[in-house]
Amino acid sequence: MTARQFTPKDFTERMERAVAQAADAGLTGLLVTPGPDLVYFTGYQPTAITERITLLVLGAGRDPAMIVPALERGDAERADGVSAVSLTDWADGTDPYARTARLLDPDGRYAVSDAAWAMHLLALQEVLPGSGYTSMTSTLPMLRAIKDAEEIDRLAAAGAAADAAYGQIVGVRFAGRQEREIAADLAGFLREHGHDTVDFTIVGSGPNGANPHHEMSDRVVREGDMVVLDFGGLKDGYGSDTTRTVHVGPPSGEEREVFEIVRRAQQTAFEAVRPGVACQEIDRAARKVIGDAGYGEYFIHRTGHGIGLTTHEPPYMVEGETRTLVPGMCFSIEPGIYLPGRFGVRIEDIVTVTADGGRRLNGTSHEMHIVS
Amino acid sequence: MTARQFTPKDFTERMERAVAQAADAGLTGLLVTPGPDLVYFTGYQPTAITERITLLVLGAGRDPAMIVPALERGDAERADGVSAVSLTDWADGTDPYARTARLLDPDGRYAVSDAAWAMHLLALQEVLPGSGYTSMTSTLPMLRAIKDAEEIDRLAAAGAAADAAYGQIVGVRFAGRQEREIAADLAGFLREHGHDTVDFTIVGSGPNGANPHHEMSDRVVREGDMVVLDFGGLKDGYGSDTTRTVHVGPPSGEEREVFEIVRRAQQTAFEAVRPGVACQEIDRAARKVIGDAGYGEYFIHRTGHGIGLTTHEPPYMVEGETRTLVPGMCFSIEPGIYLPGRFGVRIEDIVTVTADGGRRLNGTSHEMHIVS
Repeated sequence: MTARQFTPKDFTERMERAVAQAADAGLTGLLVTPGPDLVYFTGYQPTAITERITLLVLGAGRDPAMIVPALERGDAERADGVSAVSLTDWADGTDPYARTARLLDPDGRYAVSDAAWAMHLLALQEVLPGSGYTSMTSTLPMLRAIKDAEEIDRLAAAGAAADAAYGQIVGVRFAGRQEREIAADLAGFLREHGHDTVDFTIVGSGPNGANPHHEMSDRVVREGDMVVLDFGGLKDGYGSDTTRTVHVGPPSGEEREVFEIVRRAQQTAFEAVRPGVACQEIDRAARKVIGDAGYGEYFIHRTGHGIGLTTHEPPYMVEGETRTLVPGMCFSIEPGIYLPGRFGVRIEDIVTVTADGGRRLNGTSHEMHIVS
Repeated sequence: MTARQFTPKDFTERMERAVAQAADAGLTGLLVTPGPDLVYFTGYQPTAITERITLLVLGAGRDPAMIVPALERGDAERADGVSAVSLTDWADGTDPYARTARLLDPDGRYAVSDAAWAMHLLALQEVLPGSGYTSMTSTLPMLRAIKDAEEIDRLAAAGAAADAAYGQIVGVRFAGRQEREIAADLAGFLREHGHDTVDFTIVGSGPNGANPHHEMSDRVVREGDMVVLDFGGLKDGYGSDTTRTVHVGPPSGEEREVFEIVRRAQQTAFEAVRPGVACQEIDRAARKVIGDAGYGEYFIHRTGHGIGLTTHEPPYMVEGETRTLVPGMCFSIEPGIYLPGRFGVRIEDIVTVTADGGRRLNGTSHEMHIVS
């Protein structure tokens, strides 16, 4: 199934909605740099993000404007969403910031893409001392958080492809092979099922599973290991991110017990999803199950993160996030328990908020899979 | 040949030198974020650069300090250069900026990594309103520009590997194949010769060669095409970046003439390299040859860029760059002529500044290679 292309109209509507949201937040407009924000508004992705500034300026009562390096103008013009944008360019050896500043209100207050280069921001602050800046996530965190139907379809397609890859990986040999080899198998399966990029394939066996940021290593997986598999990438521009924990051969009673607590935490958090609930409540729901079971100190990260054009984006399911869930939001629910030096368990699904609850965008079983 | 590992002493010396340079520039210190700067000072590269802040703070009269997400502390501790750094961490659900601010002088003035996230910088500006910031490139542009012997060896090894890949690519069939296929061959050859990542493999045939930022396409290369090949990546952490322009079958008289002008421009610029010469003089030397030959308006980019842990970094060989060359600097010299709708020619070598001139770090011939 090929994804429907986003149209110039889609991009224009996104820009208009963003400008309205910026105005509501008391901002003059938005400054968008290459990366997911620029893809969202224009479909334009420069070949590489370099030290040469590219900047889209959105504001009320004016046409969207974008400045690009002269060398990249042709590429920019070919992007679908750029037809509604007035383009200017700058050449090597000229001052790009003076020219960029002309697109801004000298006393304006702008939300800037989170990952905009500090170098560019500092230059604008210097050229326009009366201007003010704030990060997209601090003022307009939910800009890309509510997905439209096509975006949800793409996330679901990415999730289904990850499910298919999982279905294959549990059939390969684990015992006697390095984590690195299993990770390579997993990456191959994700690509086979249509992932354009594979961004992470975590294989955390035995004690390595107890480090939630462990990626993979030369460690040889052994009979009796618990193995955390956390994998994902982009398919048609949208992300997958799934975690399942498998066991090589029969688990011990304690391993079963810890697994069951994480499974219940994930399920309980999922059941808490509905419009109007604060994001931190999803975190609390998972944390309460694990805390009540006596493992609270071993659940050492937030419960989830938004997903879309990037793997980590608002909304975050974390204590302190009091913003509420809205239909169309998509995020991970991924509680875990990490017993240092021993093993870890994590179960992660991507969930979208519906009119009256939540819907999982990946669907493989939560039962503990025994691998060989 | 395996590259020598950088030692904790190498990293400590780099940090000390940077602090001294910052003091000379009137700065309190440096704020270093994940990416090439952090690799340079500590050898530490987080698995992914995410929205979670990691920051190394360097300043006179104090130990280097770094804050990392709690989840990534173990990874950070394993990096060679981190042994000399005092580590703190922050957990999900806490405010990382309040904690980061405690590592800074509230009235300090800091140089920040160019690609630091605007989100992090804006948060620090808000938490510490008395502090001031400037970009690494605007105040300490030459921080990583002068390479030590081991760095030059690695750049030379990357250049030699690119030479070997070029030696193979001119033997493959060009006519009748898509640019994309030839680019895939080239990427394969770079990996065969030890590149860990391949960052770009530009194949610009016929009119596509006239767009210096063209990457590759489905265009089928034809007999009679001029083809620009610009390729590189990282080997042992250091970059290669080579351009050669080949021709499918015998060239026309005009093609030969344009090629010869670019060849002379490259050679003339190379011969201008010596300590004490302003960077812009290297650009002028190339530009004069092309301008005198009547093609000035078709040389539409700067003559070169520094190279090291990244492919584009100071020093830039561009009009307006009055800083002077110092032994150990490494950069590209890559003039070109681009005739819109027709063809382009570019020749690029990486050059290092020696005590009394320049030395090329890649060595394939500048003669026009005829391919089939």
